[in-house]
This record gives sequence, C-alpha cells and structure tokens, in this order.
Amino acid sequence: MSDPLRLGIAGLGTVGVGVVRIIRQQAALLEARTGRPISISAVSARSQGKDRGVNLSDYQWEDDPVAVAQRDDVDVFVELMGGEDGPAKAATEAALKAGKDVVTANKAMLAINGQVLAELAESKGRAIRYEAAVAGGIPVIKTLMEGLAGNEITRVMGVMNGSCNYILTRMENAGKTYQEIFAEADGLGYLEADPQLDVGGIDAAHKLAILSSIAFGTKVDFDGIQLEGIERISIEDIRAAADMGYKIKLLGVAQRTGRGLEQRMQPCLVPDTSPLAQLDGGTNMVVLEGDAVGQIVLRGAGAGEGPTASAVMADVCDIARGIRGPVFGQPATTLVRAKAALTQLPASYYLRMELVDKPGALAKIATVLGEAGVSIDRMRQYAHENTAAPVLIVTHKTTQSSLDAALANMENTRVMAGVPVALRIEEV
Amino acid sequence: MSDPLRLGIAGLGTVGVGVVRIIRQQAALLEARTGRPISISAVSARSQGKDRGVNLSDYQWEDDPVAVAQRDDVDVFVELMGGEDGPAKAATEAALKAGKDVVTANKAMLAINGQVLAELAESKGRAIRYEAAVAGGIPVIKTLMEGLAGNEITRVMGVMNGSCNYILTRMENAGKTYQEIFAEADGLGYLEADPQLDVGGIDAAHKLAILSSIAFGTKVDFDGIQLEGIERISIEDIRAAADMGYKIKLLGVAQRTGRGLEQRMQPCLVPDTSPLAQLDGGTNMVVLEGDAVGQIVLRGAGAGEGPTASAVMADVCDIARGIRGPVFGQPATTLVRAKAALTQLPASYYLRMELVDKPGALAKIATVLGEAGVSIDRMRQYAHENTAAPVLIVTHKTTQSSLDAALANMENTRVMAGVPVALRIEEV
Repeated sequence: MSDPLRLGIAGLGTVGVGVVRIIRQQAALLEARTGRPISISAVSARSQGKDRGVNLSDYQWEDDPVAVAQRDDVDVFVELMGGEDGPAKAATEAALKAGKDVVTANKAMLAINGQVLAELAESKGRAIRYEAAVAGGIPVIKTLMEGLAGNEITRVMGVMNGSCNYILTRMENAGKTYQEIFAEADGLGYLEADPQLDVGGIDAAHKLAILSSIAFGTKVDFDGIQLEGIERISIEDIRAAADMGYKIKLLGVAQRTGRGLEQRMQPCLVPDTSPLAQLDGGTNMVVLEGDAVGQIVLRGAGAGEGPTASAVMADVCDIARGIRGPVFGQPATTLVRAKAALTQLPASYYLRMELVDKPGALAKIATVLGEAGVSIDRMRQYAHENTAAPVLIVTHKTTQSSLDAALANMENTRVMAGVPVALRIEEV
Repeated sequence: MSDPLRLGIAGLGTVGVGVVRIIRQQAALLEARTGRPISISAVSARSQGKDRGVNLSDYQWEDDPVAVAQRDDVDVFVELMGGEDGPAKAATEAALKAGKDVVTANKAMLAINGQVLAELAESKGRAIRYEAAVAGGIPVIKTLMEGLAGNEITRVMGVMNGSCNYILTRMENAGKTYQEIFAEADGLGYLEADPQLDVGGIDAAHKLAILSSIAFGTKVDFDGIQLEGIERISIEDIRAAADMGYKIKLLGVAQRTGRGLEQRMQPCLVPDTSPLAQLDGGTNMVVLEGDAVGQIVLRGAGAGEGPTASAVMADVCDIARGIRGPVFGQPATTLVRAKAALTQLPASYYLRMELVDKPGALAKIATVLGEAGVSIDRMRQYAHENTAAPVLIVTHKTTQSSLDAALANMENTRVMAGVPVALRIEEV
C-alpha cells in the first residue's frame, strides 16, 4: 500500500465540513481512484467547541492555521478560511515555505495575491490548486487549464455569482423590487457577511480575474476589470428586457481585443434563447471559447457544501495522484502583464428612459443618438398615465464612446425625465 | 529546455490533420503550457500521395502503423484510424509493448477491447488516453475521472451522437420523414461509412460504455447496454411529443440500480424545458450526477476537425506534463464485472397508437392499461378523417414489465390499427 496523503485543514465552515465528510465517507473510493489513502492529520478553525455535525475527534486541533500548515504530519494544506490576505495568506505562505502543497477555495486571495503566491509555490516546486475558487462544483479550472490546453482561448464568459443570479431571477419571478429581494436573500443567508462582495460584483470579478489569467497567460489582474454590480437593476428593467426578448444577468467576459485584454463584470442583457438565459437561482454557467474547440458550456451548482467540497476533493485527488503543474497553467515567471483594454468591443445596447410628455421629445432623442453615430434597431414607447413617457431603445452595434457621447448629449435636450439606464447586450 | 515529446500519428483523416495543424500552428503556446516542445516524428495513413492541405514533409512516412508505434523516435503513439480491432488494436498493442504512451479517439476499440488494452498498458506503466473518443471537444473524460473524483457518481447521461441529433432536430424543423432526412444527412457526409453505427445507436453506445466504466468502477461492458437506434422514430412521433411538451433524443443513461448496472441507449422523450431539449444539430451534451456535486452539464461540439483535435491535444499535453494514471480511473485489475440490470427503473412512458373507429375502443385500451397496473397521466385523441383514430397517452411512472404486459394485451383487444409506439420519458 502506498503512503497516505495527509491533509491539514484550516477553516471548518460549510466547505470544510463537507471535505471532512467526503474523506470520512468515501475513504475506499478515494483510495481506489488515487492509489493511496487520504487522511486528515489536523484541523483549525475559530472556535473549537462548536458542534459542526461531524466527528473531528480523530484529528489534532490547532488554534493557529499557520501551525497546521507547518506540521510534519501534513502533506497538503487545505485553506478554507477565505480573505484576500490575513491568516489565509500567512498560512498559505507558511505551508509553501514548509514544502507543502496547497488546496484552496479562496478566490479573493488568488485574484489579489495570486502572482506572488504562484511564484513562491513554483520556486518551492509545490502546487497551489483552487478548483473550488471558481464556479463551485463545476470543474472549470481543470477544463480550461488541461481540457482545452491545445486551444488558443478566444473568450471566457460566465455567470459566476449565484447570489446575484438568485436576486435577478427571483425579482423577475416574484415581480418584486431589488430592495425587497435583497432583503429576502439576506434573510435566507444567501449573501456574504459583506453583501457588497456579492451584489457589487466583486466576488464574481475575483473569479473572472483567475480564469482570465489561465486563459490568456497573463498575470492575474483584478484591478483591470471594469466592474459594476447589480444594485441599479430595477424591476422595470427586468420587465422591459423580457419584453424585448432578453434576460438580465451579471455577466463576466474576458477576451483579447486589438487594444488589449478586455475584462468586465457587469449586468448585461442576453437573448432569451441563450443557455445563459436559462440559468435560475444559484446555478452557475461558464462559457469557454477556443480556436479549435469552438464553444464549450459548463453548468452546475456554484456554491454549497457538496459542490464546493467536490471541487476541493478533485484537487486533493490530483495531488494524491502526483498531478501538480504551474499555478496558472504556465510558469508564473512567464506570465505577461495584461494591457487592459480601456474601451469595450462594440455591442448593441439597451436604453430605458423616461421622456417628458411634450411634442418632439422622442425626435430629439433620436436626433442625439444619430448625431453620435448610434443607430436604432428597435424602439418602443409605452402607454403612460403620468407626465413621463417610458421609452425603450435597442441600438445597433456601437462603440462605448459613441454611446457615452449620446448619453451626455441627452442631458442637454431638456426632454429627459430622470437618468437613462444603459445596459450592454452580449451576444452569446 | 526540456526534451521534446515526440509523436507518431497513425490516421490522417479529419482529426489527424487537425492535430498536425494545431502542433504546427501553436508550437509556442503548447511549449509554454507543457514546459516542453511537442513534435511529430512520423505519420502513417492509407494513401501517402493524397493532398491533405497540411505540410507533412517534415515527418517520416510509414506505410504500416505498427512501424510508427515502434519507432525509437516516438514517445506517444496517436491512434486515429478507428475500428474496434484490426490495425488500430495491433498498433496500439505494439506501442504499449514498446513502452510508448497511447492517445486515441477510438471509442469502438475501447468499448470492445478496453479492458485487455488497459491491463496491458498498466502492466507496462504506460497510459492510454482517449478524451476524443467521447463527445468530441467536450472534456468529459477528464471531468468525470478527475474533476469529480471526490464523488460517488449516481448517473451519467448524454446525447452523444451528433448525426442522430442532427436527424431528429432536422426532422422536426423541416417537418420531413426519417427517410428523407437520413438521405439528406448521408448526402452531406454526416454519417459513418456504415450508417448503422450512427442511427443504430452503436457509436453512442460505445461512448456510454466507456463513461460507465469510469463512473462506476466496472469493466467496460458494451454488451450489457440495452440498445435501440432512431430508425423507428417517425415525424408523427416528433410532432406528437412536441404537442405534449417533449423532444425526442437518442439518450444514453447509465446508473446503478438495486438490481445492478442499468445501461441503455435509446430514443427517449425529455421535457422541453430540459437542457437536453435545447440541443440542436451536431452539438453533444453530457450530464454527470454525483452525490456531492449534484448535477454538472457539459455542452459542446461532438465532432469535427477542431473540436476532436482539441481533445486529442488535451491528452497529448497531459502526457507532456507527466499526467498518466489508470486507463479507466482506477487500476484495470480492480475494476469489477458489472451485473447488468435486466429491467429499467420505473418511468413514465409515451404511447402513440391508432385505434379502429368503433365505440368503446378507447375504453378497451384504458382497461388493458389499468389491468396491467399502468395508470394514465394524460391522454389525447385527435380528430381524424380516416378509419383509424390517433391516440396519445402519457402514463404515470410504471415498470417496464407492466408496460410490456399491457402492450402484449393490447394486441388481443382487436381495436388496434397497427403496432403502438412506446417511448420512455426520461426525467432530467
């Protein structure tokens, strides 16, 4: 029998408990598949006394995660605490310096400190694996890094924050406002302790930054992401988009353009018929496009004990089998600095506005759009009872700068009641 | 610089040419990702003179694939000839015996001879990798074997023959008969030289047998698959299914039941709202279900030069990185013989029949169903102008044996005009 692979786990929240449970319940299966037993030597979490519904008495307890990372009887340090720096980063660095491999679910740490950690790991000949950091149970890191290794990746796209997708689909299904559904989701425990991480798009952007680095061979560049959350999405927009044949999703897109690497996380309209439009609730979807393979779509649970623990265990099993490799798919020292594309590729846009109810108001808006070079594909004015007339416009493909110019000029027409909403329409 | 990984390729059809093209065009990318150059030493195919649109003059030509497999300057033998035995198997065995790794796209060879080849490879410490054998460009082997390694797999399901899916979706969209669309697909070169491999479900069943072995730790068991092709699917069934809210797909399902391993490849009805129902044309979809991860859905091109070559290159890159491992995910000698479940798990069924236009005909059918313990969920009788009345029935969940008993008794009612059609409805 081969030597066991011995884990030290720091962080015993939902995911940590899920990992302990799989290791206890599936010992025979894991050994058959990896050729060696997988065991736990030590664990660490904030509170030792808490009942987590799983038996931890076989494992050594450490109050300090760094102590877990440095134990002689630990081969792999499993970091499930979270946080972009602090104890998670300190313990990860300690583990790598002590010659341990690291498995983590920590998207923030990798999106912000991935490059320095990757260089450290590779200088020590150790792996950092993080399947659980992106899109929960979906093996998207493995698919991108290994399954599509023969491709030049052309675009990476995804709905990768289940909480936002829950809020947007629930607003549509219940016909309630953002504020109402936000409160509901928060009450159900669906949001991070700092909800801004979810609804501000930050969590999803962390994931996009990681995928982007692997896809394009660039240093992970969270700051290069054009980021917008879902807070300004109203039930009116969801209804109006549906009326025009679209759904609104918080969508991440990364692609090379002639002007550099475009990375953005923002609410977009996608056609009703797109696979992305079918996504309900907490489900995630990632779309990967390569020059040889065309389009690959992956769908699965984006969070939760079982799915996330499944992803952690995939990494543990790979390490048990001796599969390591560079952290971001090629040696960290060969990753290039991304040149951020400052403007997005041309797209159609959805515009929703209210116009004062005066003759010629619509003509003025159409004129402003035309003068900025933005042509109208479809336009609807809705019946109204108050003094402002709701108008929807879907433009033909236009540049962001033309659209911004048009929006700026609209201000001066004196026919606008309120600020117009503009959302990008993404072709999928 | 590390030593190059040197390939010998046997078979220069669409896929072989695609592999040559990627290696020539993406040399720098492949080396960055795998840490070593990937080169081609020798190639082999039936006709040396043929213009394949790609420059082969840098490579040694061998008339005999076995000679490619045995060359000293070949590290990996890439088998792209096809066929369950014959030259493909002979050359694969020669390569393994000569200490080479093997990459293949040959589903038939693995479905029929996988166990003996796996035992040979593992006794020599060599790999056989075959991502391209199942679902074209979709990295489903890697996802199942590595990405979900921490799961007990509960069900594997998929639409894995693009030609059949093309025929079924084209029948629906064009409103034409099976015979008409079959002839169209054949004329377009969408079918295998022996079309029975496609429309008889054999090719898809080869793929299912391979997935099943990985999922359940069983010896690959093609003969244990309950197999039925799409030849008897009529345009009337496609229309009637649509009318009841379903699409007809050639669907493979493998799952453990209390009575053994159920493996079947047959035309089934899936709900309109299922991701499987959205699949058009040559696209493939595989659904993997595990106890921890829940449901993972993978979608992509099931065939074609680029997608299949992408899958071959994923295997080549893995070998270049030193990733090997047992052929079916655990050592071949530990795979158990599957006990085939002789009866399928209970399901709802779709029944379409024509009844003679006599009073009491429908009552007789309902009585026969009731006596066999088959209860009716929905029933429709359509207006008709001739002497036979079309009737559709969707049953509640029932066993295959109850249904078979009911169908047998219907023969004796003397109210049937023709043979009824029964199709399983699969919950997805």
